Amino acid sequence: MTAGLADGPGLQTLSAGATVLLKRLDALLEGWGTGSGAAPMIMPPLLPVAALSRLDVYDNFPHQALVVSTLDLTLHQPGVQHEQFMPGALEPALFGLPSAACFAVYLHHEGRALPDGTTVTVLGRCFRSEEHYDGLRRLLGFHMREIVALGSHEFTQEHLRGFEERITALADALGLTMRKEAATDPFYDRGGQRALLQRLSPVKHEFIVDDLAIASLNVHRNFFGERCGITLDTTGQAAHTSCAAFGLERWLSVLYARYGSWEAATEAVEKAAVALGAADRTGGAER
Amino acid sequence: MTAGLADGPGLQTLSAGATVLLKRLDALLEGWGTGSGAAPMIMPPLLPVAALSRLDVYDNFPHQALVVSTLDLTLHQPGVQHEQFMPGALEPALFGLPSAACFAVYLHHEGRALPDGTTVTVLGRCFRSEEHYDGLRRLLGFHMREIVALGSHEFTQEHLRGFEERITALADALGLTMRKEAATDPFYDRGGQRALLQRLSPVKHEFIVDDLAIASLNVHRNFFGERCGITLDTTGQAAHTSCAAFGLERWLSVLYARYGSWEAATEAVEKAAVALGAADRTGGAER
Repeated sequence: MTAGLADGPGLQTLSAGATVLLKRLDALLEGWGTGSGAAPMIMPPLLPVAALSRLDVYDNFPHQALVVSTLDLTLHQPGVQHEQFMPGALEPALFGLPSAACFAVYLHHEGRALPDGTTVTVLGRCFRSEEHYDGLRRLLGFHMREIVALGSHEFTQEHLRGFEERITALADALGLTMRKEAATDPFYDRGGQRALLQRLSPVKHEFIVDDLAIASLNVHRNFFGERCGITLDTTGQAAHTSCAAFGLERWLSVLYARYGSWEAATEAVEKAAVALGAADRTGGAER
Repeated sequence: MTAGLADGPGLQTLSAGATVLLKRLDALLEGWGTGSGAAPMIMPPLLPVAALSRLDVYDNFPHQALVVSTLDLTLHQPGVQHEQFMPGALEPALFGLPSAACFAVYLHHEGRALPDGTTVTVLGRCFRSEEHYDGLRRLLGFHMREIVALGSHEFTQEHLRGFEERITALADALGLTMRKEAATDPFYDRGGQRALLQRLSPVKHEFIVDDLAIASLNVHRNFFGERCGITLDTTGQAAHTSCAAFGLERWLSVLYARYGSWEAATEAVEKAAVALGAADRTGGAER
């Protein structure tokens, strides 16, 4: 199948088979969230530059950042084929495209006092400018399903333990050979104190199939709680947060490689969902 | 509920109740597409400026256009709170945010010879810069479900007739008072010939509840077929296209007004889906 004008480096159209698989897989992951009490939410597709800046996004990932402008209509030439718009033809950029789905969750809860044990699940389209792109493995725009925990330090740790069990069980059920690795997170790279903490206690673990990280578990401690003024309603202290994140196109990539067709991969995910659901009901996984 | 930093004019977070309703409604609309043979697809979330320009987007909707840039890293200041990025801090904008979900469908099919009767259904996040925003009624970023027909003129007309029946039946089942109105489409506003054609034969009809257009049926004749070099495999002529389009947040807005809660509205959509499905099976609607 030839790629049309809509497809290019970093941008891919998903066929009917890939679309059905993505939706089936996402339903399973969302169900993990809602089944354990997470509120399913849909977050704004753009976020204010000012809000993302408050989360250090433009300090930590300036090379990956994508921002959004309207056109300066006083300079706009109609009737011309535009290959690009030069900076001088743009208005100031007030909005950014999110690079992770959970940023909007912290920003939405700004200034709130939450009960311990709050969880939210979101599917976001995320955007990262990269030096090179690689099929479904590395995209400019991709889907990220996240299940986010907000509460006490203990709760956010327990959240990740539960998701590590689920991710491991799903990979087993799907016949994927997966390994877990500690990774570095740029949110904690800056400054000696944070870098030291990270070496002592990793804040990000990735689950890797064929050198591709398809899921991650992330500890943010009270970073987002402090930046967004989110507190625990019991103590008034800044909430801790953690999240389990799944790059859906990467799952599609490894599932296609494993099963050889979208249809066979979808069938495997459906069987895994049934098997894991049965294990869940007999106490085989955290409720 | 107070709005956090993620929410602002034109950008809204959907609560759990609204999220469940949006997904339920979208499943019904997607099912109309797939049930009559449409391929469900997921299109790239950004499109090249050059591709959108070829569709006259920047001539017809320059005031609504939103384009995407990376940062000029030679000028980037770390450790600063950014409220916006000035044009001089941006690289040229190579990508645009789509203002309609179907553009990517035509661009994806560029240069292909298609069988008559091709249909595709997509859910896209669409973006339009507006003078003012209004809750879920007028957003900077919103969800659009489309069912797109590509083929002969006759087929694209029949597609719209079938969807007019479905839209009317759904509004009836949901107890929504809806009217149909001819509307103008900027794709045909330019030039005497197109404007004349449009007066003789409207190319856009909107379905309106409480002064809000919640769905539209659009005739494009061979405009996108010609621009994208999409041909009919039988004749080699430029394909005609048409689409049925649904602004999902607008449906949420009218359903909430009608039913008073997200839960009651979701229940009404579920009942309508069952009733319309039964009518469909007994031949009450086009297959």
